[in-house]
Amino acid sequence: MHVAIVGAAGMLGRKLAAALAAGVPIGGVAPTRLTLVDVVPAPAPEPAAVPIMVRTADIARPETAAALIATAPDILFHIAATAMGQADSDFAAGYRINFDTTRSLLEAIRTRDGGPLPRFVYASSIGVYAPPFPALIPDDFPVRPDSSYGVQKAMCELLLDDYARRGFVDAVGLRLPTLAVRPGPPTFGNSGFFSNIVREPLAGREAVLPVAPTVRHWMASPRSAVGFLLHAAALDGGVLGAERTLTLPGLSVSVAEELEALERIAGPAALARVRFEPDAVLSGAAYPAAFAADRARALGFALAERSFDDVLRFHIEDDFG
Amino acid sequence: MHVAIVGAAGMLGRKLAAALAAGVPIGGVAPTRLTLVDVVPAPAPEPAAVPIMVRTADIARPETAAALIATAPDILFHIAATAMGQADSDFAAGYRINFDTTRSLLEAIRTRDGGPLPRFVYASSIGVYAPPFPALIPDDFPVRPDSSYGVQKAMCELLLDDYARRGFVDAVGLRLPTLAVRPGPPTFGNSGFFSNIVREPLAGREAVLPVAPTVRHWMASPRSAVGFLLHAAALDGGVLGAERTLTLPGLSVSVAEELEALERIAGPAALARVRFEPDAVLSGAAYPAAFAADRARALGFALAERSFDDVLRFHIEDDFG
Repeated sequence: MHVAIVGAAGMLGRKLAAALAAGVPIGGVAPTRLTLVDVVPAPAPEPAAVPIMVRTADIARPETAAALIATAPDILFHIAATAMGQADSDFAAGYRINFDTTRSLLEAIRTRDGGPLPRFVYASSIGVYAPPFPALIPDDFPVRPDSSYGVQKAMCELLLDDYARRGFVDAVGLRLPTLAVRPGPPTFGNSGFFSNIVREPLAGREAVLPVAPTVRHWMASPRSAVGFLLHAAALDGGVLGAERTLTLPGLSVSVAEELEALERIAGPAALARVRFEPDAVLSGAAYPAAFAADRARALGFALAERSFDDVLRFHIEDDFG
Repeated sequence: MHVAIVGAAGMLGRKLAAALAAGVPIGGVAPTRLTLVDVVPAPAPEPAAVPIMVRTADIARPETAAALIATAPDILFHIAATAMGQADSDFAAGYRINFDTTRSLLEAIRTRDGGPLPRFVYASSIGVYAPPFPALIPDDFPVRPDSSYGVQKAMCELLLDDYARRGFVDAVGLRLPTLAVRPGPPTFGNSGFFSNIVREPLAGREAVLPVAPTVRHWMASPRSAVGFLLHAAALDGGVLGAERTLTLPGLSVSVAEELEALERIAGPAALARVRFEPDAVLSGAAYPAAFAADRARALGFALAERSFDDVLRFHIEDDFG
């Protein structure tokens, strides 16, 4: 089974590549070949149980997407994206990376020169939704994005449904919750602070909390996200029907609950490293608090964590070397 | 005031061009220059009160769209589209004509070399909606297309909102009802029969009714559609808020009511030219019966006709030479 990852140099891509390189099976079948694609060279996990090919390519270009599909992946994960902030600050790059890449891949699959239809797993986002949010957002909540990022993701979801309806692709889209704890340096756009306020204190550094502790949001650990992607890759596409994109389970966690977990796991000294400095823009934003995610749950998508304490433990286990 | 029409060779484009060439004002201002654009040469209305430039060009190409925008239209009507049936049968052409043309125009406006922001009036369609339909479809009914045509229109609506939100375009989208009576030869895809069953008998020809007389659908005359486009061109964009596309008023008419109007206007001999031959696909389709169209009504969009009798009279007045 040949598995390809587009966006393999990103945070989630690296974790997914590591799992597959270690031989984690998809639907009971272990990968035999792994192709890692990104606009910058993706790090090849070591040691690896399977041969790995690293391709540096801009898949937004139709001919580059076609060359990738010509390598006949059985499963193609498309998790390349710019973050919400970048998609809004660099308008053209946002459309190129978040929309054209998806379209080029779908067209390359549709017009490929024979071979089986690959399973296409696409990482969408809860960013396709916009306020006002009900306390619990149902699966049929209207998709009405209010950011360029959300528009690009929503357009890709429409393409997925159309290509799948016509039999041109075997696609599953996943509206991922905000991922926390994101490893790496702090990020300051939109939802980055949900990770910053725990990752930095855990590492002994100070962090700024830009919103009130009562703010509640929908999160999942990167470990859960990798699990979701692997589960989607093995899903029977026939059960999805016309709507190929699923809103995924998450944890509904308030900032206060994050900080309580931080204190339980790392003590009052860690908590004391968080400084409250309200940011007008972030404090004025509306964060979706909880999604029903009924369809995804019924299809077997399940979180790895049961609490935000688990989320912190996973971060320590997975990202602290 | 320089007015450009993309899709000027189509049925609606020709009628809009004729109105503007006759000097019909937009927001009280008469056009002083008219540019007619299509992939085939658009007929220039005669006599014309204003200079007319006919451009034969594929606006899906970014450089062609940029050349058009460089002529600095104050108002740009984009009503180029393939029909629903063609968008589904020629997949690539559907995306090129129904999506890429819109995107190229929006990008050309965003990246234009100075000059005022043109008002962009975009013809969308009630085809962005899919069943199951309530009896009266509210303005906030979710956009969930079930055809390639509907997906392309929905993607364009998302682009309109995003470009407008960012201040890159001053856009209004209009979800037009099914237009009846369409002049010209019979069309057999999707909603063509709503026109065929009255146009053909009025002209002394036989017509086939492929669905039950109880089928009810949302229609407007081409005369109303031209009025909608002109009204949209003069609308204050500021009142539209984040959602730039409006669902328009129409008549909720059953096939039986169409045929009753036909008999009233043209007598029992005309009615006798309609033969009932159920078509499995068309009979199995779900036709939206009525839309609330509250937002558009509040913004002054109003039908020209009060009944389907009026629709038939307009057809006779406007299309029978």
